Amino acid sequence: MAVGLDPHFQLLPPYLWEKWVEKEGKTWEALSHCVLEFNSLILQALSPVVGFAKIQVAFYEALGVPGMAVLKKTIEEAQKKDFIVILDGKRNDIASTATFYAQGYLSQLEVGKDSCLPSFWDVDAITVNPYLGEDSLQPFFEEAKKEDKGVFVLTRTTNPSAPFIQDVGEEKVFIRVARLVEKWGEGVRGESGFSSLGIVVGATYSEDMRFLREEFPSLLFLVPGVGAQRGDFSSLRFAFREDGEGALVTISRDIIFSYLKEKSNEGWGFEEKARDRAIFYQEKLREILK
Amino acid sequence: MAVGLDPHFQLLPPYLWEKWVEKEGKTWEALSHCVLEFNSLILQALSPVVGFAKIQVAFYEALGVPGMAVLKKTIEEAQKKDFIVILDGKRNDIASTATFYAQGYLSQLEVGKDSCLPSFWDVDAITVNPYLGEDSLQPFFEEAKKEDKGVFVLTRTTNPSAPFIQDVGEEKVFIRVARLVEKWGEGVRGESGFSSLGIVVGATYSEDMRFLREEFPSLLFLVPGVGAQRGDFSSLRFAFREDGEGALVTISRDIIFSYLKEKSNEGWGFEEKARDRAIFYQEKLREILK
Repeated sequence: MAVGLDPHFQLLPPYLWEKWVEKEGKTWEALSHCVLEFNSLILQALSPVVGFAKIQVAFYEALGVPGMAVLKKTIEEAQKKDFIVILDGKRNDIASTATFYAQGYLSQLEVGKDSCLPSFWDVDAITVNPYLGEDSLQPFFEEAKKEDKGVFVLTRTTNPSAPFIQDVGEEKVFIRVARLVEKWGEGVRGESGFSSLGIVVGATYSEDMRFLREEFPSLLFLVPGVGAQRGDFSSLRFAFREDGEGALVTISRDIIFSYLKEKSNEGWGFEEKARDRAIFYQEKLREILK
Repeated sequence: MAVGLDPHFQLLPPYLWEKWVEKEGKTWEALSHCVLEFNSLILQALSPVVGFAKIQVAFYEALGVPGMAVLKKTIEEAQKKDFIVILDGKRNDIASTATFYAQGYLSQLEVGKDSCLPSFWDVDAITVNPYLGEDSLQPFFEEAKKEDKGVFVLTRTTNPSAPFIQDVGEEKVFIRVARLVEKWGEGVRGESGFSSLGIVVGATYSEDMRFLREEFPSLLFLVPGVGAQRGDFSSLRFAFREDGEGALVTISRDIIFSYLKEKSNEGWGFEEKARDRAIFYQEKLREILK
């Protein structure tokens, strides 16, 4: 299971936000510091329980340069605590540009003749968007392979409008995308039979998830959509193979903001409530995988 | 016309890169400073000539936090010099997350009860990716409308694999996307007949560009693909309406790195060569629009 670090600004514990506003005023810096402290406490509480952290870049980018500094610190802190870090940025561009995203996040940045800089962000995996087709995904696949890192390609997303593009065609677009990723994963599968090139499959479309699992037994799924997005939990079974492998379920708001389930709460102890909620979900997962 | 600030690291003028390496070593900071100086000189030289700057985020993001600081400074400098700034980030996500991208780039960031921060990046327009469908684009459209800013939705991209998804379906995906953007632009068209919600149409697919222009006379096109990507220049005529309006042609490498056309060049005076090249393209454009 992965915990999603999506620090929705309006949902941060009031006590924490007020503390930073008092210190620094209502500024990008104050909110960035608030997010960092929130993340640290969550990572600390969840590290004995959860192995993966999915970090949603939008929240950090929206806070500008101070937010990006907090993104870097969050990545480092998560990795220090042995989380495998998936950066959820859904990046995409033509190949010559995608190469720079891929190198900056996953591998080495080529900066001149025989000259490289290390990857600044140096995460373990990223999410990418396939709208531009194969040649635009290739740099991500190649840079990931160089460093044994992961790429998850948006395939079937969780949202209501997902079918608008993803369902078009006799063989639907999302199936074509899965087929493409499967092809690129050939020859780099580990002992488990999976490669580190996977797909994003939303739990809110359980029939499609079931179909994809049957059709692509060797593809690793990153599965958002349960929790706040209300995908059916029991249908998560379909994301896994018979042997109980093959899917990484990611839950964000419903874990990290579980303190909100209690009325009139300033947010004290949110991290323990998040940990309890993560344990609750892991047990539920274990049950459906029995 | 728009100049694309895509500072491909391997193409930066050697004299500039060496200067910064001498000062700060081969670091992200040195490269970031080098990019900023490069951008400043380009913006200075081109500001009397070109009205729009399209900034490709990938290059700044790849340089980490120092790169994002340079992105911010580049945006400010361009706007101070009266460039209209289009941030080319091709962002996308489910609606609740896309809202944060949209607010961070275009409008105000909601951070709590009745509490807002100004947009950190505060650019004039952004590019977005439609793979997740209408509900994922809506926050970008809405935040843009609030502030009279622009959104360009990837529709027909320039690259060879573009058809993989974009050509699927009886009515092709890229046409469906254009139709969607047209719908959202209704009711917010200016005197010109255009709204600030436009589409990205690559010049490398000139027949599709021609079709889209005829089918969607009220849509503004952002047109990459000529110059380094070798789209046919004369076919650019098809991107414009009869009245010569409707398209913003964007050229990146072929302008900013035009100094490379000369052999054994350390890059001195690259900015004047860039300006000359921009003037050359503007005259070519004027000719085909006669």
